[in-house]
Amino acid sequence: MTKPCIICVAITGSVPTKADNPNVPTTVSEQIESTHAAFEAGATICHAHVRNADESPSSDPEKFAALKEGVEKHCPGMIVQFSTGGRSGAGKERGGMLSLAPDMASLSVGSNNFPKRVYENAPDLVDWLASEMRRYKIKPEIEAFDLSHIHQAVALHRDGRIPQTPYIQFVMGVKNAMPADKNVFDYYVETVKRLSPDSEWCAAGIGRHQLEVNEWSIAAGGHART
Amino acid sequence: MTKPCIICVAITGSVPTKADNPNVPTTVSEQIESTHAAFEAGATICHAHVRNADESPSSDPEKFAALKEGVEKHCPGMIVQFSTGGRSGAGKERGGMLSLAPDMASLSVGSNNFPKRVYENAPDLVDWLASEMRRYKIKPEIEAFDLSHIHQAVALHRDGRIPQTPYIQFVMGVKNAMPADKNVFDYYVETVKRLSPDSEWCAAGIGRHQLEVNEWSIAAGGHART
Ligand SMILES: [Zn+2]
Ligand SMILES: [Zn+2]
Ligand SMILES: [Zn+2]
Ligand SMILES: [Zn+2]
Repeated sequence: MTKPCIICVAITGSVPTKADNPNVPTTVSEQIESTHAAFEAGATICHAHVRNADESPSSDPEKFAALKEGVEKHCPGMIVQFSTGGRSGAGKERGGMLSLAPDMASLSVGSNNFPKRVYENAPDLVDWLASEMRRYKIKPEIEAFDLSHIHQAVALHRDGRIPQTPYIQFVMGVKNAMPADKNVFDYYVETVKRLSPDSEWCAAGIGRHQLEVNEWSIAAGGHART
Repeated sequence: MTKPCIICVAITGSVPTKADNPNVPTTVSEQIESTHAAFEAGATICHAHVRNADESPSSDPEKFAALKEGVEKHCPGMIVQFSTGGRSGAGKERGGMLSLAPDMASLSVGSNNFPKRVYENAPDLVDWLASEMRRYKIKPEIEAFDLSHIHQAVALHRDGRIPQTPYIQFVMGVKNAMPADKNVFDYYVETVKRLSPDSEWCAAGIGRHQLEVNEWSIAAGGHART
């Protein structure tokens, strides 16, 4: 039995700017055209961050609304996933656009270190973001920056805070969090199969680890994040 | 070849008070007597937190000094380990007593969730605590609340920020962090053997998981924390 490989395109992360790479789309119209190109190349999920005019990360619901409308128009059937990641704002700001009811949204379920700071996802913020996702019928993509986050995702599903079958993304190669380590990757896959065999999962390698981690993921039957 | 099992006694954690258990030693003199009893029963490391007069966690260097002096007098040869854990203060306060040069001190190398909040160990704080431990020749006990913390401990050892062979404690059973899961425990042991075979390790189960996790640890050749 084969299952289709879902390709999720993260057209714009929260860090690189045009100074790093002139091809990074940072305005909403650039993002829509870039997503359209990825859609025609086979991508099925658009993982979206938005930026302010100075290219810094934003959590502005108006920008998210314009991006969603454009992607829905140019890429019919594509799944729109909003990032609720912590670089775009603090606390509940991070979920202020969930009332736009995208198909999916990212959800971090634990805390960890980033290269220069703590990535803070306090238990009450996680609960609030999950409750907004239930309210607007948004499927979460759980961001697993460490092993306990997989266990936490399963716990949230078992007690009903995440009603849908979990969709878990392993994030590897972030400095001061989990390195891109094949042995850990294999154990992550084994852990999902052990604790929640119906779950779907994908893997993202940050920066120079992107291709390597995608290869591991596809070979092991997971989805791919670009 | 057998190696001696090190028993580490945490006479007073940072949470329970006499209202929870009238036998919890919370004054320095109570702590010294309690450590003495554990020493005579075979404990070799004293993991120490101190408390304020109202039993709340403290990082007061004077209390740590009195405790160290008492333990050294009553328990000759016992290893004194100070906690630099985050419940006793914020930022550098947590390491203000390291100039007392205890034999060991706990060192968290990553961040994670606790039952009701984020346990914050930002990269620059970790670096500063490690530098103080180098300065006063204190051996760190690395607290691994999640898998990436083991990888981080090995990285800190490899680049010289932790000069000594790592001594790693797996902490399991903290709500919203890593559960007490035997499969994870086995993988933790396998990970230490794979990445840093000379390292020593022990395991602590929180609350009702204490005995179970100690049994796993002793059976697998690790040390025990009570
Ligand atoms: Zn993202
Ligand atoms: Zn288009
Ligand atoms: Zn402690
Ligand atoms: Zn005594």
